[in-house]
Amino acid sequence: MTTRLEQQFAFLLEAEKLKSVTRATPIHDGSRPENSGEHSWSLALYALVLADQAGHGVDISRAIRMLLLHDLVEIDVGDVPIHAQGGAAHDAPALLAAEAAAAERIFGLLPEDQGAELLALWQEFEANETPTAVFAKSLDRTQPVLLNLRAGGGSWEEFNVTLPQLEARVGAKIARGLPEVWQAVRARILPWFAARERL
Amino acid sequence: MTTRLEQQFAFLLEAEKLKSVTRATPIHDGSRPENSGEHSWSLALYALVLADQAGHGVDISRAIRMLLLHDLVEIDVGDVPIHAQGGAAHDAPALLAAEAAAAERIFGLLPEDQGAELLALWQEFEANETPTAVFAKSLDRTQPVLLNLRAGGGSWEEFNVTLPQLEARVGAKIARGLPEVWQAVRARILPWFAARERL
Ligand SMILES: [Ca+2]
Repeated sequence: MTTRLEQQFAFLLEAEKLKSVTRATPIHDGSRPENSGEHSWSLALYALVLADQAGHGVDISRAIRMLLLHDLVEIDVGDVPIHAQGGAAHDAPALLAAEAAAAERIFGLLPEDQGAELLALWQEFEANETPTAVFAKSLDRTQPVLLNLRAGGGSWEEFNVTLPQLEARVGAKIARGLPEVWQAVRARILPWFAARERL
Repeated sequence: MTTRLEQQFAFLLEAEKLKSVTRATPIHDGSRPENSGEHSWSLALYALVLADQAGHGVDISRAIRMLLLHDLVEIDVGDVPIHAQGGAAHDAPALLAAEAAAAERIFGLLPEDQGAELLALWQEFEANETPTAVFAKSLDRTQPVLLNLRAGGGSWEEFNVTLPQLEARVGAKIARGLPEVWQAVRARILPWFAARERL
């Protein structure tokens, strides 16, 4: 076996661990928490299906690759729910530093040229500046909202989320890359928050 | 909300059910069966990482899309393990017909143009004739072998698989699209079968 293939196998076997990282969002029927591996699959499918919602300059194939990789750092760091600690935990500097170190380690398992390429893709996603990254990030915020609603509340129950909180933490980020999608999602979730007097 | 977006949401929410379809292969640590959603994520990542193993005429972005979709029919039909019934169950005509009907139903949830496009992509994968489909199918056979080995045997234990059986049912299909990968995988799994006198 070539060393190159050995390194690629090592990376792919390491990546499998993402299936054991659990998230705050339940799967569709509420029976268990979603894991970050299957979450990444959902998001790649969202990018494929919602391609016609993408703004100018979005490269869909690149967005799909980004979404396949975007959560690998959670193998080392875990998933930090967006509604934990009143929304403050998710973008804490210590967390961002730990994620950056995890990315160096995990993509560092690959052959050097390939590791650098995929690390750059992850960094582009995190920086959230290019049209492709903004589209991908917006999808990453959309899917848990639809899943929570489908499961009857999911992590909104656990963290006592109100609609204004959701709009600030999540809605604004969805609207940045997917304005029409956010309008549609907001209309869908409104009755859930209205029924609980969390408007 | 536009009808188009409603149809896309309906498809994406239906697709979530793939996370509840379990496979014969365990996840990396052997703690539970893999589900077909996270399996699809793994395969898309394999296509991305093993792109330099692809033969002439393979479109990697198309292979990734194919692999994201390839198991959706299991929402209706379930996963049929490749080693069940001595390998006979997997390509039975009744199963293939049920999968085709499932594809019509599931991709039929999408807007007509998009549903037709993704159905054609699934059919291309199933036909296993284009270089892209052969590459994708070969990956679909590779990942469970590496996972079984990593988990200490996995579905090879359950179905009493020998190396000649594995070579016939799986190895030949891997070698068709990924000859170098099959050589490397075969070298890795040989000790497991040798230790059990299943050569
Ligand atoms: Ca995420």
